Amino acid sequence: MKAGVIGATGYAGAELVRLLSGHPKVEELYLSSVSFEGNQIEEIYPNFLNRISCELLKAEEVIAASDVVFAALPHGIGEKYAAGCIKKKKSFIDLSADFRFDDEDIYTAWYDGKKYQYPELHIDSVYGLPELNRHKIKGLFKKGLIIGNPGCYPTGSSLGAFPALKKGIVGEGPIIIDAKSGVTGGGREPARAFHYPECADSVAPYRIASHRHSPEIARNLAVMAAEGNNPAPQVIFTPHLAPMNRGILSTIYIPLSAEWREESLNNLMPPKAKNEGKAAEIRKLYEDFYKDEPFVRILPYGLTAATNRVRQSNFCDISVHLDINGSTLIVTTAIDNMMKGAAGQAVQNMNILFNYDEKAGLEAIPALF
Amino acid sequence: MKAGVIGATGYAGAELVRLLSGHPKVEELYLSSVSFEGNQIEEIYPNFLNRISCELLKAEEVIAASDVVFAALPHGIGEKYAAGCIKKKKSFIDLSADFRFDDEDIYTAWYDGKKYQYPELHIDSVYGLPELNRHKIKGLFKKGLIIGNPGCYPTGSSLGAFPALKKGIVGEGPIIIDAKSGVTGGGREPARAFHYPECADSVAPYRIASHRHSPEIARNLAVMAAEGNNPAPQVIFTPHLAPMNRGILSTIYIPLSAEWREESLNNLMPPKAKNEGKAAEIRKLYEDFYKDEPFVRILPYGLTAATNRVRQSNFCDISVHLDINGSTLIVTTAIDNMMKGAAGQAVQNMNILFNYDEKAGLEAIPALF
Amino acid sequence: MKAGVIGATGYAGAELVRLLSGHPKVEELYLSSVSFEGNQIEEIYPNFLNRISCELLKAEEVIAASDVVFAALPHGIGEKYAAGCIKKKKSFIDLSADFRFDDEDIYTAWYDGKKYQYPELHIDSVYGLPELNRHKIKGLFKKGLIIGNPGCYPTGSSLGAFPALKKGIVGEGPIIIDAKSGVTGGGREPARAFHYPECADSVAPYRIASHRHSPEIARNLAVMAAEGNNPAPQVIFTPHLAPMNRGILSTIYIPLSAEWREESLNNLMPPKAKNEGKAAEIRKLYEDFYKDEPFVRILPYGLTAATNRVRQSNFCDISVHLDINGSTLIVTTAIDNMMKGAAGQAVQNMNILFNYDEKAGLEAIPALF
Amino acid sequence: MKAGVIGATGYAGAELVRLLSGHPKVEELYLSSVSFEGNQIEEIYPNFLNRISCELLKAEEVIAASDVVFAALPHGIGEKYAAGCIKKKKSFIDLSADFRFDDEDIYTAWYDGKKYQYPELHIDSVYGLPELNRHKIKGLFKKGLIIGNPGCYPTGSSLGAFPALKKGIVGEGPIIIDAKSGVTGGGREPARAFHYPECADSVAPYRIASHRHSPEIARNLAVMAAEGNNPAPQVIFTPHLAPMNRGILSTIYIPLSAEWREESLNNLMPPKAKNEGKAAEIRKLYEDFYKDEPFVRILPYGLTAATNRVRQSNFCDISVHLDINGSTLIVTTAIDNMMKGAAGQAVQNMNILFNYDEKAGLEAIPALF
Repeated sequence: MKAGVIGATGYAGAELVRLLSGHPKVEELYLSSVSFEGNQIEEIYPNFLNRISCELLKAEEVIAASDVVFAALPHGIGEKYAAGCIKKKKSFIDLSADFRFDDEDIYTAWYDGKKYQYPELHIDSVYGLPELNRHKIKGLFKKGLIIGNPGCYPTGSSLGAFPALKKGIVGEGPIIIDAKSGVTGGGREPARAFHYPECADSVAPYRIASHRHSPEIARNLAVMAAEGNNPAPQVIFTPHLAPMNRGILSTIYIPLSAEWREESLNNLMPPKAKNEGKAAEIRKLYEDFYKDEPFVRILPYGLTAATNRVRQSNFCDISVHLDINGSTLIVTTAIDNMMKGAAGQAVQNMNILFNYDEKAGLEAIPALF
Repeated sequence: MKAGVIGATGYAGAELVRLLSGHPKVEELYLSSVSFEGNQIEEIYPNFLNRISCELLKAEEVIAASDVVFAALPHGIGEKYAAGCIKKKKSFIDLSADFRFDDEDIYTAWYDGKKYQYPELHIDSVYGLPELNRHKIKGLFKKGLIIGNPGCYPTGSSLGAFPALKKGIVGEGPIIIDAKSGVTGGGREPARAFHYPECADSVAPYRIASHRHSPEIARNLAVMAAEGNNPAPQVIFTPHLAPMNRGILSTIYIPLSAEWREESLNNLMPPKAKNEGKAAEIRKLYEDFYKDEPFVRILPYGLTAATNRVRQSNFCDISVHLDINGSTLIVTTAIDNMMKGAAGQAVQNMNILFNYDEKAGLEAIPALF
Repeated sequence: MKAGVIGATGYAGAELVRLLSGHPKVEELYLSSVSFEGNQIEEIYPNFLNRISCELLKAEEVIAASDVVFAALPHGIGEKYAAGCIKKKKSFIDLSADFRFDDEDIYTAWYDGKKYQYPELHIDSVYGLPELNRHKIKGLFKKGLIIGNPGCYPTGSSLGAFPALKKGIVGEGPIIIDAKSGVTGGGREPARAFHYPECADSVAPYRIASHRHSPEIARNLAVMAAEGNNPAPQVIFTPHLAPMNRGILSTIYIPLSAEWREESLNNLMPPKAKNEGKAAEIRKLYEDFYKDEPFVRILPYGLTAATNRVRQSNFCDISVHLDINGSTLIVTTAIDNMMKGAAGQAVQNMNILFNYDEKAGLEAIPALF
Repeated sequence: MKAGVIGATGYAGAELVRLLSGHPKVEELYLSSVSFEGNQIEEIYPNFLNRISCELLKAEEVIAASDVVFAALPHGIGEKYAAGCIKKKKSFIDLSADFRFDDEDIYTAWYDGKKYQYPELHIDSVYGLPELNRHKIKGLFKKGLIIGNPGCYPTGSSLGAFPALKKGIVGEGPIIIDAKSGVTGGGREPARAFHYPECADSVAPYRIASHRHSPEIARNLAVMAAEGNNPAPQVIFTPHLAPMNRGILSTIYIPLSAEWREESLNNLMPPKAKNEGKAAEIRKLYEDFYKDEPFVRILPYGLTAATNRVRQSNFCDISVHLDINGSTLIVTTAIDNMMKGAAGQAVQNMNILFNYDEKAGLEAIPALF
């Protein structure tokens, strides 16, 4: 199979190159880059020396040569390439936000006022979160499908809340998602916020109540709630920048409905540590929900999610806890933002699309350090 | 004035030594350490070479020689020294948890089942959060006072929630505190969790719903709420370890009462960015609350708290935001856990106790990097 | 094929487990650990959940079940296991220093006065630096061979100096190796020196003129020099600890013989940057020396070695430069200390021993971040 | 006294602002910035909120209002301001390279071909390394002096080699300086090399044999050697970037003359660890050389320099060792690159110039973490 990557020299693009070059089904790889056309990818990323050697072409050349095209471009410029692919019944897996929303108004409101240029493409495109939409993707490679690959924060946030929403254990009040991301999330272009001395040895929130991933998360949670005939929750999302390269840790606070609350303890007294009661029931519920998912790990009792347990892998780790009063579910999730949060998930989508083993090319064991 | 530090070779103790050695009122400094008795402090911390030279004595010698004694000991072993000080009408500023609780049951339940050995000492001791209890400390040096210096997490958490609680703008539901700490918070003793390769380049929560600082935070919030004749809130506290040396960033989610909510926006649409409405009112309320506090900075509109803005200083930075739905107040606070979260606050307490300028010895401008 | 790892829960052991579990020729994996016998490896390293599940046995059980045994033990306790293996004609790849020296006196002098307990085993054992001794290892699996896997520093240091020594371009004076290592080099046991707050945000040398890897480096360089009929050089080796997880960067200063010096420039004037003259000749010489080596990359003109270019891979990157006066060769090398510096090289040795493709199980492309 | 800073919003400029605002002799502070003229410094650096409030003026206004002017500008644009100061008999302390060289040819060759625009200013200007030129600076504030503040690398490198050169213990062969710097050394402007994901968790050399600080170091060493009637040494300088904010660690290899060598040991055997022989003699020689220096600390036997021991201070720590063969002196030095390597040294120069206590404003004890 022949795969192409448009925008191969950004971080997500280069990670795609790394993954696809080791993918057992990918026989040829075509890459493009506006900034570095004519260069070799291994000149831009000397990490690839002796392993990957590939010239950077024009996007059109990549599309012509490939069976599936990944686009790792800034928002708002990939639609025309998607149109080109669909015309040739080739699938297009877009890592930007351009195909994440059915509702153009939401996209326009959050993404610099941009309008869809090819509105018809958005009707049949699929939001590529496999745990939500696998059935809409599976085996459609012959037809040519546009997949909007999810944002990094929405992936870790949604997977942590899905089972609770589907099963209807959520009570009144907002679901609060407090997320901590590594700096690769900011992309490859140097900027003050990601300048080493400005972000090393420090943690800070940013874009409080105004991050573009907020509506994507809220939409995902609403869709899953609706699948269980439950109401859409209110969502509060706060991203933070942490001094690490990769990873997103999401701490998710979900108010429980009355029947799922543990008998309330005194605010001031410690809980008895034991694996029983509502917390254990809810963990079981999460395990059941994800029992066939190849990349979701519900952690055993006693562990919490940690970004260094999923490093370099496509896993999403999830841990389930009850707050000290028994009224709120605390879920922690960890993903590698470049893998399950971007390139890894895109490859997972390709695998589903082409009826490959969903784990093909994604079997890396999380690096220990 | 003569100051003593018992337990001078732990991280908080050494930070106290650094601060006290530069304090304009401290003429003599006496230090003790069980582990390193007979050594010089500058042998244990070569950073101090050419600046601080001081032999490590016995605790009893330190008490005998000092006008005020700081104890930076593990929990449960300082009471006898406190008793020794009070007998001589010397003040005792304790950085452990031993004097943070009036209610022995809470202490016992959370601190390894320990009982108070000198219950009478706890009647007159004061919880040393100046923004709460300054009036109970001020000028009492002649009498001899025991001060329980607050925990690091409780300091950053409480200061962020106090104005809302006092002013009664809090509505139904739990106050959720999601805190991210640097690794010095774990102390000087090597342990797997703080071994460089285990915590570098990673973020993870720990002791979810079971951290010892939970009851201290809940108690503080209840006390301040009561001062405004408001009910005690439910509190959920989740600590995280972040790969940085110093600092605690607390992101605090406070449900607003109906009258303080902004007209609700659609969950899926971006807020208009402007400094007006309820968010501006609440920022004003916070500014008023802290207007005379020397170490609390309410950040101007547009900024969030960041640990690298308070580094090496005794400041607590606070930013105030409204969630996207207008229903929840999002407060972020940043402190240096070794300063306002430990040694700096202890010196602040000493300054209050002795009627010194509260900023004496604590005027360091936050280091830029 | 069946592989065993004794000491599987230390860092090098766990990295071996990770590599061997993905190795195309390894069908069964047996692990032992004194500290965690009876546990599952995935309990100790939850990174492995859903990918590797393996009980920790006794060392003897591992030896009985395996065709090749890797030992990742502290120095001085593996000889008896080696003896057990050899008796059964099974090969033993030892990651400790126990089989790195023919000369027992050197071993004894540097390793706590320890004596060889099975001196006869050391006669036929091979120092497993493939670029030096591949021919002594290749295909010997039937006979049963003991391989002393090289130290991390000696690997990066030796590979950078070998071509110069073999080709006889080295002049008078010491070869100086200034090496910077990540913290995993210190192993998994917590210790003050590797406690996060003690080593983060700082660089420092340690064991100047007294590190155990010094004699191993000096020996390697002498052996290679002798292969070219050149005299053994004097070696100065200084290790440093840098705040990173993985990697060793070695900067190697090699005095050139008169004929290999560039026409000397003024000490105070900049060199003309161009890829010609002696520097280019020497780069060519290095390229030729390593042209058939699967894991050595001589970097193109303009690049220097960097630890983040070999991260998670078995590569040793090498760059070649001339000092400003043209009198000294400056070589920089980068390895991942856990891969080419430990577990990766051990697997490479296994591949050679068993006549497998030398790259089997070691094809990971260096992770970009 | 009134101090001015031109270029106050770069890293060195801002660090100057922080130091000068706490300096006991500085009563008024005037700042300028081309990029942010009209803003307040505390808007650019919110760290300064509540402590420093100062409008950013034009450079000319700063010069008019100040008794001494610090310039923290890019190379090649400060001369005209220096001229303006000298005309008014005000001193000018320049943190750029513009006044570091008497020899214009060297400056021109290394700094983009730039020529001196006011050659006469360079005749009386002084290279402001106090340990070399204090006597040329002391008390000259009335006359108006231009001081070329040294580069960061040259400071740490020169101080480590000076005693050996003055005392004539240096033998044949190059002095090799292998230096490791924190990322603030690259300044405040974002660039790929200093983008967090590109430099975190990695060490790499850069500008091998071609860094601009090379001729400054070589010149300094030649000057000091000449003071002892010794020949100028050949110098090799290799800078590295390490993942830390502040600090430079320099490892300096100095060949010893025959009489200063320790009786040579076998290359392969460990040295006896003891504080005696030539190493002890040389340490004594270093102690004597620096015995009156307020900011140089010769570390006691058993310690090495470490950047986290001088953090936030103006100290230069120096340790002295003998290589394993007794033929080479290994000196390690550590400075905070923003302090002794830039702003701190500039303030030290001001103190000398104005006959203040040389330590005024520079008494910070190195931060422990």
